[in-house]
Amino acid sequence: MRIVGVTGLPEVAPGDDIAALVLDAAVAQGTPLLDGDVLVVTQKVVSKAEGRLVELRTVEPSEMAREYAHRWGKDARQVEVVLREASRIVRMDRGVLIVETKHGFVCANAGVDASNTGRPGFVALLPEDPDASAERIRAEVERRTGVRVSVIISDSFGRPWREGIDQVALGVAGLLPLRDYTGQADPDGYELRVTQVALADEMAAAAELVMGKLDRVPAAIVRGYAVPPGAGSGRQLLREPEKDLFR
Amino acid sequence: MRIVGVTGLPEVAPGDDIAALVLDAAVAQGTPLLDGDVLVVTQKVVSKAEGRLVELRTVEPSEMAREYAHRWGKDARQVEVVLREASRIVRMDRGVLIVETKHGFVCANAGVDASNTGRPGFVALLPEDPDASAERIRAEVERRTGVRVSVIISDSFGRPWREGIDQVALGVAGLLPLRDYTGQADPDGYELRVTQVALADEMAAAAELVMGKLDRVPAAIVRGYAVPPGAGSGRQLLREPEKDLFR
Repeated sequence: MRIVGVTGLPEVAPGDDIAALVLDAAVAQGTPLLDGDVLVVTQKVVSKAEGRLVELRTVEPSEMAREYAHRWGKDARQVEVVLREASRIVRMDRGVLIVETKHGFVCANAGVDASNTGRPGFVALLPEDPDASAERIRAEVERRTGVRVSVIISDSFGRPWREGIDQVALGVAGLLPLRDYTGQADPDGYELRVTQVALADEMAAAAELVMGKLDRVPAAIVRGYAVPPGAGSGRQLLREPEKDLFR
Repeated sequence: MRIVGVTGLPEVAPGDDIAALVLDAAVAQGTPLLDGDVLVVTQKVVSKAEGRLVELRTVEPSEMAREYAHRWGKDARQVEVVLREASRIVRMDRGVLIVETKHGFVCANAGVDASNTGRPGFVALLPEDPDASAERIRAEVERRTGVRVSVIISDSFGRPWREGIDQVALGVAGLLPLRDYTGQADPDGYELRVTQVALADEMAAAAELVMGKLDRVPAAIVRGYAVPPGAGSGRQLLREPEKDLFR
């Protein structure tokens, strides 16, 4: 299995066609996309291309946003944007604001981020429908080149108990995000208790290794992995709230 | 970056030399280890080589283990082993037993697992000191071949909020498990809020893609990644309890 970062993309702006930019950059660096590749694209460039940017100057913070921001040394307007993107607060403690987003993701600050937006004074929101974002890129790659790839929209999330951010798949197209071992047995005939592996999250993590945060490598190609056939959704990676012990 | 599974290892038994087995298998498949490689080895084979196996027949369950096992349809002796490996219970609800282990890992069932032990009726515990396990393998690879690699001992952990297990690094040798961006800025000069990436966990995830759970591929080589120099510990990936909102 090979993982290749896609470099040389221009700064992405609202309205840009991510599929076209990635295809051109991949060809220019000598690694054109091939059938069966998994293309991992970071949320940030997808959000920028989709115009999911908010200018903080235009945001009027609520009283709660003001108080929280004052207490913890945050920008009240950015806190306000986070609260608007949230459907529920999971934790709001010690300067950490972990929410459930309207999509159902549980993450810090609803995924709202001021870094690498390309526009000082703006914050980027998560894509409105990350599966649809992935599918648009997948379909556009196929339309332009005939090449059939799978697509993952990735983001960096923190997690309980462990330091450092890890990667997750927000949305997918052309693959099943979980690999299922239900009913399978080990060589001794012992049925496996752990039955699902978060394949798309693992691919997002693998891709991050060649991306970095400052290198302006917003996409990576995972090549040589036999993707389980099927069309899934990033929502399959979200645990149902009633099965979750940590909400 | 390439990721190569190491296949063809024999069934591992207590006392086996993991470094020797991996070196031989890697040569046999035409991918001998090279300077700068990161060798990811699954916890299960390390635990087996280190004799971290408990025969359930020899375990006398406590009253709490009996009651919990009865209520949720578990093996009381295995629950007892889990409780003995735990330093603290984090959640014990709906048939899920999440504990803090004596090492400080927070995970389901203290990492105790009955699958792929190679010995029916036995369960495998986590290695006693995963950093030391990693260092022994690293040093033995160097002693036998002169090749300098980094080593990660990986395991599959569930996580809150998301379905599917993901990979974590229990112990490391010859690398720093976190990549640190503290004080670095994006192209607009905006200082990055997220400052640490869980590099070793991402490498463990990447390795899992070529391992699978049933394929008997207990090791993988990550090649072509410029490992940040330094010697770290898997403990650097553990959040301090007082900074953790989910214990």
